[in-house]
Amino acid sequence: MKTPQSIGVGLLGLGVVGSGVAQALENHREPLACRVGAPLELRKVLVRDVEKQRPVSLPPHKLTKDAQQVLDDPAVQVVVELMGGESPAGEYIRGALERGKHVVTANKEVMAKDGPELLALADAKRLSLLFEGAVGGAIPIIGSLTKDFLGNQIHSIHAIINGTTNFILTRMAEEGMSGDEALRLAQDLGYAEADPSNDVEGLDAAYKLAILATLAFHSRVSPGEVFREGISRLHARDFRYASELGYAIKLLAIAKRDGAKVEVRVHPALVPEGHLLAKVSGVFNAVEVEGNLLGRTVFHGLGAGREPTTSAVLGDLVEIGRRLVANGEPSRAVQMEESLTVKAMSEVETRCYFRLNVPDRAGVLAQITRVLGDLNISIASIIQKDTDPTTQTAEIVITTHPSKEAAVQRSLALLGELDVVKEVSNMIRIEELPS
Amino acid sequence: MKTPQSIGVGLLGLGVVGSGVAQALENHREPLACRVGAPLELRKVLVRDVEKQRPVSLPPHKLTKDAQQVLDDPAVQVVVELMGGESPAGEYIRGALERGKHVVTANKEVMAKDGPELLALADAKRLSLLFEGAVGGAIPIIGSLTKDFLGNQIHSIHAIINGTTNFILTRMAEEGMSGDEALRLAQDLGYAEADPSNDVEGLDAAYKLAILATLAFHSRVSPGEVFREGISRLHARDFRYASELGYAIKLLAIAKRDGAKVEVRVHPALVPEGHLLAKVSGVFNAVEVEGNLLGRTVFHGLGAGREPTTSAVLGDLVEIGRRLVANGEPSRAVQMEESLTVKAMSEVETRCYFRLNVPDRAGVLAQITRVLGDLNISIASIIQKDTDPTTQTAEIVITTHPSKEAAVQRSLALLGELDVVKEVSNMIRIEELPS
Repeated sequence: MKTPQSIGVGLLGLGVVGSGVAQALENHREPLACRVGAPLELRKVLVRDVEKQRPVSLPPHKLTKDAQQVLDDPAVQVVVELMGGESPAGEYIRGALERGKHVVTANKEVMAKDGPELLALADAKRLSLLFEGAVGGAIPIIGSLTKDFLGNQIHSIHAIINGTTNFILTRMAEEGMSGDEALRLAQDLGYAEADPSNDVEGLDAAYKLAILATLAFHSRVSPGEVFREGISRLHARDFRYASELGYAIKLLAIAKRDGAKVEVRVHPALVPEGHLLAKVSGVFNAVEVEGNLLGRTVFHGLGAGREPTTSAVLGDLVEIGRRLVANGEPSRAVQMEESLTVKAMSEVETRCYFRLNVPDRAGVLAQITRVLGDLNISIASIIQKDTDPTTQTAEIVITTHPSKEAAVQRSLALLGELDVVKEVSNMIRIEELPS
Repeated sequence: MKTPQSIGVGLLGLGVVGSGVAQALENHREPLACRVGAPLELRKVLVRDVEKQRPVSLPPHKLTKDAQQVLDDPAVQVVVELMGGESPAGEYIRGALERGKHVVTANKEVMAKDGPELLALADAKRLSLLFEGAVGGAIPIIGSLTKDFLGNQIHSIHAIINGTTNFILTRMAEEGMSGDEALRLAQDLGYAEADPSNDVEGLDAAYKLAILATLAFHSRVSPGEVFREGISRLHARDFRYASELGYAIKLLAIAKRDGAKVEVRVHPALVPEGHLLAKVSGVFNAVEVEGNLLGRTVFHGLGAGREPTTSAVLGDLVEIGRRLVANGEPSRAVQMEESLTVKAMSEVETRCYFRLNVPDRAGVLAQITRVLGDLNISIASIIQKDTDPTTQTAEIVITTHPSKEAAVQRSLALLGELDVVKEVSNMIRIEELPS
């Protein structure tokens, strides 16, 4: 066995996570070398501005503004991509693999959109492409789905995988903040970006869910196939009513296998208060995986940010380093052994919570229940909530038994047309999870 | 790359978990072959009784009562040990490695006592010895500590890793059952053995904690070094008082690094109700790992039993199978890079809950608080609980600030000698975990 003197690492991006990784490679050099069997040596780092002052001090000759200097350096055996975004990060990952270099990335967008092709390219080249940092930060969900749980048929994933929105929902639930107030607070604290739409509209969660579903079901799921609904329609009132019914409201990412189809959807959901997912607060993430053998396993931890993502990236680096030391080829990566189709959202069945604003008088319920009954939507409960004496209106909350999304959407339209309904204020799906 | 036609598996033990593994290899042959890159072929199975009727049907020529027939079979490349117990399982694992066979085991006792030697033997022979099933069933805690979290310095582990005792404590807390009643129920449901002492006295948890601490701190921790206290002293009353104080009572397994020392202890502990560990109910397990980068990550899932352990064993088998397919040597296993010593329990500092039975009259508290004060045990709260008019006694509950175990033990002796203390009814340590 020929043990390499050191393992050359090239880094693309020296932002928040990149500098965390560079610093850890420096500060934990000895233990990492021991765990790998050879030191991990940072050779070249792609930066936007070579002159910029940084918290992590690197010798100037290691910094470059030219990606080719990293990708073409023969001393670089592993390229770590931490730039984020689809382009040029995706091209760089591909370029690194084509040049025979192993890759570690935390790029959810690239892995969600082009993961299967890139993994196939890595496989063909007998290279590793690891991406634990792309989903769930320090939560080892990628490793679990691609290794530990491989003896299972995975039935479902229920996850809170966007810390920004979970922070906002936690503040709305616990402090009665409005969504806008909570978002501004998240921005002030650095948990949300100036343009928060990727988080708030569920796109970030959809990328991550596409990755998890692809790995769990061994069948490609693209982010565009994920049904997506953001958190902007949620009102403080919904949290109060949900709580009275025994539920929390969370932005859930759900992937379920149903025969040869998969459901993949990101939307606000009522979650039973007794379930661990209901207790995930602030910027924490949690993922529940259900499989035929494992039952239900929940992971809970920090889902993003400098240290948690650095933890994931270093774990991947150590794994690749160990393989290089053992002269081992990477073992089989992700297998696309299935060809499942994504179920149309209209076919998906869920329980629902409706909040309606109606005139406070007799005969109203009869008309509403007839609309639902005609659509075969079975009612689980009807509760009259706050009434407003000045407008003579009342709020009613209706929960349903499992109903097809198509019928639910049709009911929303028909209810909106009724004279006795002033406003269909909200519809939130209910996920009944066993605690 | 020479891909093997199939990967030969030898199985030692066809009990609850062994038959689960045999059945899964049979029923999920195709997906497992796809994930590994070659079929996993069960070649030989060690059983006690070849004639016995079993739920899993295996051709008679594959069954043997002679372990050597498994260990010496040249077609067996991986030996899966699922007999449990120290001997002869430990000798068989060693024998398999000496014959050049990879090993998968779920044997906590062998891995706790002899894991470091066996892992070193496997390393020297360039073989894999994997043992995900030894701790936490389907929870991928071994894989996380030996791979995903390797970029971290682990600070602490707080775990509920014995389902039997957690089931008992849950029933005591939620239904006010006595410990004996709850134990009998656990036995009736098959969660506890006829002789429950390994579980109830914390030995099972101590084995598992020794394994986790060794992996987390890269330094050998033997099960005999783990401080251990069982659940038999807990009374329904303690659960009520703890709940009033805002705590649940759990049998915690705790490993903490403190400089060049480690604390390793298994004992009942008051856990803040807001913490996820306080919400682990029934036979579930949970493990919280704290590291410098990962922050705190919690795993929650089924900790034992046929399916969860089968899940872990199959994950290990797939990993070894993939390496064989890739012609790869196993990458570096567990590194013993540190030489930490185990901190004496007398040096450990914890907060404490005392329950005392005292005469219901003036002057009692003065004497008690003087004893504690003289030992530098600082009091956080004193609450008088139930009084008994017939015996004219009262129960008082005292909680302390962090205090050295040596002082706490001394205080228990001195309090017991006071005339004004009829009985020191209980002392339970308090673990303040951030939620």
